[in-house]
Amino acid sequence: MKWVYIEDISKYVGMEVELRGWLHNKRSSGGIRFLLIRDGTGVIQGVASKKDTEKESFSLIDDLNQEASIVVKGKVREEKRSPIGFELTINSIQVIQNKEGYPISPKSHGVDFLLQNRHLWVRSSKQWAILRIRAEVIKAVEDYLWNKGFLRMDAPIFTPSACEGTTTLFGVDYFGESTYLSQSGQLYNEATCMGFGRVYCFGPSFRAEKSKTRRHLTEFWQLEPEMAYAHLEDVMELAEGMVGYTVNRVLKKRESELNTLERDTKLFLSIKTPFPQIRYEEAVRRVNELGESMELGEDFGAPQETVLSGSFNTPFMITHFPESVKAFYMRKESLNSDSTLSFDMLAPEGYGEIIGGGEREFDRKELEKNIKSRNLPMDAFKWYLDLRKFGSVPHAGFGLGIERMVAWICGIKHIRETIPFPRMLGRVYP
Amino acid sequence: MKWVYIEDISKYVGMEVELRGWLHNKRSSGGIRFLLIRDGTGVIQGVASKKDTEKESFSLIDDLNQEASIVVKGKVREEKRSPIGFELTINSIQVIQNKEGYPISPKSHGVDFLLQNRHLWVRSSKQWAILRIRAEVIKAVEDYLWNKGFLRMDAPIFTPSACEGTTTLFGVDYFGESTYLSQSGQLYNEATCMGFGRVYCFGPSFRAEKSKTRRHLTEFWQLEPEMAYAHLEDVMELAEGMVGYTVNRVLKKRESELNTLERDTKLFLSIKTPFPQIRYEEAVRRVNELGESMELGEDFGAPQETVLSGSFNTPFMITHFPESVKAFYMRKESLNSDSTLSFDMLAPEGYGEIIGGGEREFDRKELEKNIKSRNLPMDAFKWYLDLRKFGSVPHAGFGLGIERMVAWICGIKHIRETIPFPRMLGRVYP
Repeated sequence: MKWVYIEDISKYVGMEVELRGWLHNKRSSGGIRFLLIRDGTGVIQGVASKKDTEKESFSLIDDLNQEASIVVKGKVREEKRSPIGFELTINSIQVIQNKEGYPISPKSHGVDFLLQNRHLWVRSSKQWAILRIRAEVIKAVEDYLWNKGFLRMDAPIFTPSACEGTTTLFGVDYFGESTYLSQSGQLYNEATCMGFGRVYCFGPSFRAEKSKTRRHLTEFWQLEPEMAYAHLEDVMELAEGMVGYTVNRVLKKRESELNTLERDTKLFLSIKTPFPQIRYEEAVRRVNELGESMELGEDFGAPQETVLSGSFNTPFMITHFPESVKAFYMRKESLNSDSTLSFDMLAPEGYGEIIGGGEREFDRKELEKNIKSRNLPMDAFKWYLDLRKFGSVPHAGFGLGIERMVAWICGIKHIRETIPFPRMLGRVYP
Repeated sequence: MKWVYIEDISKYVGMEVELRGWLHNKRSSGGIRFLLIRDGTGVIQGVASKKDTEKESFSLIDDLNQEASIVVKGKVREEKRSPIGFELTINSIQVIQNKEGYPISPKSHGVDFLLQNRHLWVRSSKQWAILRIRAEVIKAVEDYLWNKGFLRMDAPIFTPSACEGTTTLFGVDYFGESTYLSQSGQLYNEATCMGFGRVYCFGPSFRAEKSKTRRHLTEFWQLEPEMAYAHLEDVMELAEGMVGYTVNRVLKKRESELNTLERDTKLFLSIKTPFPQIRYEEAVRRVNELGESMELGEDFGAPQETVLSGSFNTPFMITHFPESVKAFYMRKESLNSDSTLSFDMLAPEGYGEIIGGGEREFDRKELEKNIKSRNLPMDAFKWYLDLRKFGSVPHAGFGLGIERMVAWICGIKHIRETIPFPRMLGRVYP
């Protein structure tokens, strides 16, 4: 008999199949037992009865506990009332392991307890749906870049010097040398994009932030593309194309997961590129209008982002931030301007920033001026300045925070559920 | 005029195009100037002459330095003698930046110098070819797993406890708590594979090895798939399928890069699954026969791997290692056996191990016995043991070292060239 996965079950209607999985839940009604069987690819209801099910198998059902591992044989049939459209008439059940006391019951638990049991919590329907969407999002953004000719060039995690202060960096003793875990692969992307034209890196980034907010992890995954011979508008177009493609793909391929999360997807259907763009000054004006105060020259904090982002039904972009809130490498709009060729993309519905990027300063003298005026150590940037010395060209890029993107798509408030094993202040277990 | 990439040049024969790139090299012959132009996707020869080229453009060619950034307009024509089959008749050249003194000339340099200038070295033909093959290998292995239904589930980098001794681990002060950078995502994969059936993680792994060998980096990338309801033979089949697919895809899509590396690809053409399999005992016998001594119960060192792997023309697998050389989680062949359900895949031609994996112990009592007999801290494995307590099933997986795989495919001796920014003992710059 053929071992099949529940996600492929529609191909086996009327056939006898074998499922290998776990007991998700069960109930009984008269002489009939209903088993919710999950196998990692989906959940199906199996129906056992004295008529259809082997006697020995039927008799052990009442002793099966939640998360018992079971191999179930039976016949697939269409069933309109099933969420997946199919049910299994159970012939036999083989029990691999069955133990009482699975700690996560369908009743509700505190989040600390669930995080402490994250190694088991990932099996629960909602977490399962979120992480399957995460996997789709990651594959989608990488496929999108690959199909546009971008090559993956991994940036290093160990970085030699603290370019912009060490307060939010994790230090590592590297055989007696002091190094730091990377917060971004961008500077390295700028080197590889001069060799390969269009590159991206995708890896974990680390931020030693002591704040406990729903938008921060100490370890998060960032996708960072960088293009040579490109300007602000080129990477804005790339960013909106990528986000549009990804949302569409998740809608198509992860519809049942979005249903499990009870995500209202009406808004997604109306997302179209190009996304709305507003300049920084206009964004500040709107924030104040929406009842959160902020001054020109300041950065958006969480409350400001939330109200502004809540006033949109589609991802949108804020452009031309003042240099006071952006990094030293941002190119200015014009030589004496205070505005930079930068953008943030914010998700709507109050979710806030998912992407930040812009055009990099490619003139060596301007870049040196920026480094000096911010009192950064010129020495640490020796290799980075080389990129402006030899074959410097206009270039631009951005960084996408995977967890923030997944949180928005899934419609969940806290990004700790968007990564298999979240790392936060006070949380490195399991 | 249309900006095109050199990799797409065959579509533009007879047409005027714009290339944006860098001057790779040049020579002159009489009144003609030959410019090797690279744009990150390939290299094309541009031919300038007084007849075809604007006067101003022609006159500046003699002052152009290696790696000058230039925008070149011209007409594409077929040219049989060209390595890519096409040349460009140059109409005009716009210089973006041009500076003397690019440190990496076509003459040879010492490897320390090159590593110190890695941010520029990636532009050199050979490094460019290697890293483009690396990008193809990574996309190939991920596509392969995705198409087989595997979902990416990122394992954490910060891990709470040192499961198997701390001598090769990098420690990190995590807000006062002592944590370590992950050497492998396997234990976490074992948790997620019980939730998702088939999973993999792909990320940087860290090993604080003080040895300077051509096969070790302190920061390397590992792809680790894990399957629930799977046995040794299932993951061996998966591994050989993946390696076969990847080699074929590189042969097809990165032919010119392999040529640049002067890689002899004859062997690749004869690679067929299934790969040869030999048991550990037979492998030890052969190693001794090949002139390297080793005893039963010992692990293969670099010299042993090299001679054995040199005697094969295809990747091959060593199976059933004794428990003395494998980790505590390896399942035994039978209860009282000393052999484990493990395998290593070795690349031929002396390259050695590229994959290691096997079946995991899924019986809680056996696993606890292994932990105790090796004097490992039972506490650290509390969550890991939970996986054997609730819904335990046979499962298996493996880890593929990306850099070793790339080194073999590229035919290069030292893996430091297979990653954009290698990290080794004494090397964290740039």
